Amino acid sequence: MKRGFYIGRFQPYHNGHQAVLEHIAGEVDEIIIGVGSAQLSHQVDNPFTAGERVLMITRSLNHLGCPFYVIPIEDIQRNALWVAHVRSMAPPFETCYSSNPLVMQLFQEAGVQVQSPAMYEREILSGTEIRSRMLEGKPWEDLVPPAVVKVIREIGGVSRLRQIARED
Amino acid sequence: MKRGFYIGRFQPYHNGHQAVLEHIAGEVDEIIIGVGSAQLSHQVDNPFTAGERVLMITRSLNHLGCPFYVIPIEDIQRNALWVAHVRSMAPPFETCYSSNPLVMQLFQEAGVQVQSPAMYEREILSGTEIRSRMLEGKPWEDLVPPAVVKVIREIGGVSRLRQIARED
Amino acid sequence: MKRGFYIGRFQPYHNGHQAVLEHIAGEVDEIIIGVGSAQLSHQVDNPFTAGERVLMITRSLNHLGCPFYVIPIEDIQRNALWVAHVRSMAPPFETCYSSNPLVMQLFQEAGVQVQSPAMYEREILSGTEIRSRMLEGKPWEDLVPPAVVKVIREIGGVSRLRQIARED
Amino acid sequence: MKRGFYIGRFQPYHNGHQAVLEHIAGEVDEIIIGVGSAQLSHQVDNPFTAGERVLMITRSLNHLGCPFYVIPIEDIQRNALWVAHVRSMAPPFETCYSSNPLVMQLFQEAGVQVQSPAMYEREILSGTEIRSRMLEGKPWEDLVPPAVVKVIREIGGVSRLRQIARED
Amino acid sequence: MKRGFYIGRFQPYHNGHQAVLEHIAGEVDEIIIGVGSAQLSHQVDNPFTAGERVLMITRSLNHLGCPFYVIPIEDIQRNALWVAHVRSMAPPFETCYSSNPLVMQLFQEAGVQVQSPAMYEREILSGTEIRSRMLEGKPWEDLVPPAVVKVIREIGGVSRLRQIARED
Amino acid sequence: MKRGFYIGRFQPYHNGHQAVLEHIAGEVDEIIIGVGSAQLSHQVDNPFTAGERVLMITRSLNHLGCPFYVIPIEDIQRNALWVAHVRSMAPPFETCYSSNPLVMQLFQEAGVQVQSPAMYEREILSGTEIRSRMLEGKPWEDLVPPAVVKVIREIGGVSRLRQIARED
Repeated sequence: MKRGFYIGRFQPYHNGHQAVLEHIAGEVDEIIIGVGSAQLSHQVDNPFTAGERVLMITRSLNHLGCPFYVIPIEDIQRNALWVAHVRSMAPPFETCYSSNPLVMQLFQEAGVQVQSPAMYEREILSGTEIRSRMLEGKPWEDLVPPAVVKVIREIGGVSRLRQIARED
Repeated sequence: MKRGFYIGRFQPYHNGHQAVLEHIAGEVDEIIIGVGSAQLSHQVDNPFTAGERVLMITRSLNHLGCPFYVIPIEDIQRNALWVAHVRSMAPPFETCYSSNPLVMQLFQEAGVQVQSPAMYEREILSGTEIRSRMLEGKPWEDLVPPAVVKVIREIGGVSRLRQIARED
Repeated sequence: MKRGFYIGRFQPYHNGHQAVLEHIAGEVDEIIIGVGSAQLSHQVDNPFTAGERVLMITRSLNHLGCPFYVIPIEDIQRNALWVAHVRSMAPPFETCYSSNPLVMQLFQEAGVQVQSPAMYEREILSGTEIRSRMLEGKPWEDLVPPAVVKVIREIGGVSRLRQIARED
Repeated sequence: MKRGFYIGRFQPYHNGHQAVLEHIAGEVDEIIIGVGSAQLSHQVDNPFTAGERVLMITRSLNHLGCPFYVIPIEDIQRNALWVAHVRSMAPPFETCYSSNPLVMQLFQEAGVQVQSPAMYEREILSGTEIRSRMLEGKPWEDLVPPAVVKVIREIGGVSRLRQIARED
Repeated sequence: MKRGFYIGRFQPYHNGHQAVLEHIAGEVDEIIIGVGSAQLSHQVDNPFTAGERVLMITRSLNHLGCPFYVIPIEDIQRNALWVAHVRSMAPPFETCYSSNPLVMQLFQEAGVQVQSPAMYEREILSGTEIRSRMLEGKPWEDLVPPAVVKVIREIGGVSRLRQIARED
Repeated sequence: MKRGFYIGRFQPYHNGHQAVLEHIAGEVDEIIIGVGSAQLSHQVDNPFTAGERVLMITRSLNHLGCPFYVIPIEDIQRNALWVAHVRSMAPPFETCYSSNPLVMQLFQEAGVQVQSPAMYEREILSGTEIRSRMLEGKPWEDLVPPAVVKVIREIGGVSRLRQIARED
């Protein structure tokens, strides 16, 4: 049984995440998806709650063909403890898939194998770009899986983001 | 889409939990299982990490026939904020299934519908009883799903529990 | 301008507190009432929220004839920092009124003057006694100011206490 | 009994806050004033302690003609829990008065009625402007109620602000 | 360079600790002494601050003949993260010396070598016994190094302990 | 017995710190060195753990000729409580040596004597300058004591810093 760990903030979950996970699905028996900064929401850079992000991810991976876990991971504000924190919240895993330099360094210091998956269309497929399009009223729906569009509509996600981005 | 929320500490997950969840599976479209006191482990009353408990639950519900989410929920030590905390970590739900008086009171004050599922063989099917049997070297394996026996063996759970229960 | 500080958990506010405050009112220009363990509620020993306790106190002191402040004080779990914490949350004061040995020691080590007000009918006029009467269905209303009876009725305080005290 | 809730950081309390509260006083039976970021002080943007701010507000509202509560509210760093936190610290209220977009969004999602009071001379009557004048040695006293000038003098507020703003 | 780690709460530091450390001094090049529950003080079971305990230890080990570090370690309330927490606060070490079952288990799960030093006169040489003697006015001075007697006198430690142990 | 307190983040410890401490050594009987923001590491501005910083400092002061304590001090995020926090973690002291305006203000408000030691070559002898040289591959070794160079090499400090500074 080989398990891989993949972490992101998923604000929101988008096609770039989906492509990486479909790639990882071919390499491991089970995937653990950590939803980082789980305690944050209703911020311009973190508009969605952990529960909303769990919903986006789970629905989008319906047909992944590889068992997966979606685990909210709250921040602990102490980098030296973060790997132990992740490991306590997730089922055991052998490999961490990440391109984030800090995540890579922390797992490597802890003796965990790290792989950097290729990312697809990095410029466009990013949470920053998608939130920016939502704020400016530009089309963003093509950058995320259809299930994510549906979740964001159900929770009124775009109007929430626009409201909290308003000037005081 | 009707979702039900069920919470426990699952130290460990046992046949009583399994029976309740199989019952709930007949009433809702999706189940959200909150793993309470997620930050606790390596204590006599809380020997297993959240990740280990997620593993026990997920493997045991393999054939439930109802989609489910398993969400670690860290304590926040403030009862008046706990329902908002749970809601931020979980996908939206309409009904809480619980027989815990405090959980019932908190959800009711928050205007969430609460149902108390019947519990099966309450005296024997309890985490306290199972941990006590583990400590005394008595058979406990019949009280939990086979997948839980396997997880506890893989992580050396019984010897961990016995070690941390020793006198200084 | 002489200000006195008085702290309690006020679970609930009762005639003993009221008598002490009426006494202090004769000695200072303004009273600061700290509502301790402000973050706790919905516990058998701490059934009421800070806001509910603020309401009980403010309404009961309507005719005190001495200006007063009611300040929720959250626990910080570090005795050595507690006096600094209290001072940061309260207007400046010169004297602490308390019969609690720990509170007295902490303020004395910090160089604050401490006075121990006489307490009235200590055995009966205690939060423990009142909560116990509420749980057992005995009369408790005579032990608290009329305004407190009213607040507890409005919030369903007795039924909340009984519910959270039930066995699982 | 209709209660309104109004929150600010009050660094310091100024004539704009005073005008809004005098307006709210005409609409409700009691006002609850939340002193936000209560745990912060001795920062360039947050020079005053919660206790000092409580004092400024209480003294300035001496003749308001409407009962009011002044409640320090510590940050909890989790927007999704903030309304529950506020409600646990404050007496029950029906309406929130705020022009802050995030505060408005959070209360609206929680089902609380929100009203945006008109603000007076927004450019000048702001904490930022007043702290900036204090730092530059310009007159600021006309922007705050006389009682606030007195409190800031008593605590040496301007020299504190200038000292903590110095370069290392 | 071989470093050994030894942890205790040292409430207070006593001859049993001293004997163990003198033993460890013969086995390693440098000793790291962790002062556990550093944030606690002014409690019947934890009367002394971390700083006071650092002072007791440092003065008592003046002539140890082995370099040592004394490091306050605050609790983190999460056993699964505790070893990472200790390691972040202490210089690197290879061996943990402990007879505490939980400490042993946590370090062993983290892959750190653990040794259990023999303890001397366990019944008498314990913090519990010493605090109990202080409370009852019995002689305790022979159970601790002379430097500890001096520190406790300077800080008024016995009278502090008696005061906080008084009934309310 | 006169003790002086000196605090820094020591990211890393450098010749400027060393010069100040050698100066303080001539004025007091014992020095307490507080390692601030002890919980931070693996950040571009805070690359080293508290334990690594304790090691750098202790080894560099080997021949100071004045007894010293090195105490990790975690942040508490509340300026009004910070002096009490420091005092609880450190042995008693009479004088604080600092040129940091906030530290000076906080200790002065708490009634502690503050002295501002002269700093040597402020522009070059700064953590910011040294980390910047490490990142750019420029020589930095002359700015820190030889023992610090050795510690940073042993822990792979420069490569850690460069990795965590990489773009995602």
